[in-house]
Amino acid sequence: MPASPRSRGQRKADTLDAFVRTPDAWIASASASGDAYLVPLSLFWDGRRLVFATPARSRTARDLERAGRTRVGLGPTDDVVMVDGRVETMPLDADPDLTAAFVARCGWDPRKETDPYVLILLTPTRIQAWRNVAELAERDLMLDGDWLS
Amino acid sequence: MPASPRSRGQRKADTLDAFVRTPDAWIASASASGDAYLVPLSLFWDGRRLVFATPARSRTARDLERAGRTRVGLGPTDDVVMVDGRVETMPLDADPDLTAAFVARCGWDPRKETDPYVLILLTPTRIQAWRNVAELAERDLMLDGDWLS
Repeated sequence: MPASPRSRGQRKADTLDAFVRTPDAWIASASASGDAYLVPLSLFWDGRRLVFATPARSRTARDLERAGRTRVGLGPTDDVVMVDGRVETMPLDADPDLTAAFVARCGWDPRKETDPYVLILLTPTRIQAWRNVAELAERDLMLDGDWLS
Repeated sequence: MPASPRSRGQRKADTLDAFVRTPDAWIASASASGDAYLVPLSLFWDGRRLVFATPARSRTARDLERAGRTRVGLGPTDDVVMVDGRVETMPLDADPDLTAAFVARCGWDPRKETDPYVLILLTPTRIQAWRNVAELAERDLMLDGDWLS
């Protein structure tokens, strides 16, 4: 028997819960010449932004800084959350409180790494979430940065 | 207590098992102008290639056909498998046996969709797999298309 679709309100609540619970997300990036890249990174949701940390010299950091936007995937694929958003990068010491909150959440301290790290801040503009085929038609939860009601 | 790393042989066996067991994978792609994209697609391993199906006119199909390569991520992020590979796309009727095997595995039939679909064939060139920090140093299982021994 196919599962019933969750209400949009329930999916929003589940998605915010996934932002808090999920340890890592898959982050796509692309070179200027159109080669795709993908890495899993530890995730911290500060209430407005998905926050990640990665070496400043990494392919992900450099390409996201150039592109200024990307898509991120969370969850097992039978409980999908996809987030498109605007990306900013900043050195760890540009926002010590945010970095400390990231460390507290992720249990790993990029300030102690030999390579300099940056924070990647993803501000969602579109969020899609679904658990089954019944939810695909109404999978959009946020468009143009606004939660749909 | 940190987990002990699995042997390379065990990780190869676990990875081939993941190719067979995992229902979906995250597939990255990129536009020619360097915008990243990411979708979860049903997965079939034919023994040599990871096989996916997607609409011929989709962003993923068009961009992968142009780029000819990409990276795919499987699994929860505490049991990661990442596959870089060469990509070919072909119409469903170009290899009816492969399409039938995909349908049998994935329980969904792209031949019945209104939009024309293509198969995406990813031949692995590099495979990385890890479950924990202890496995990161030796995470490469395949390089240049050859399984490491």
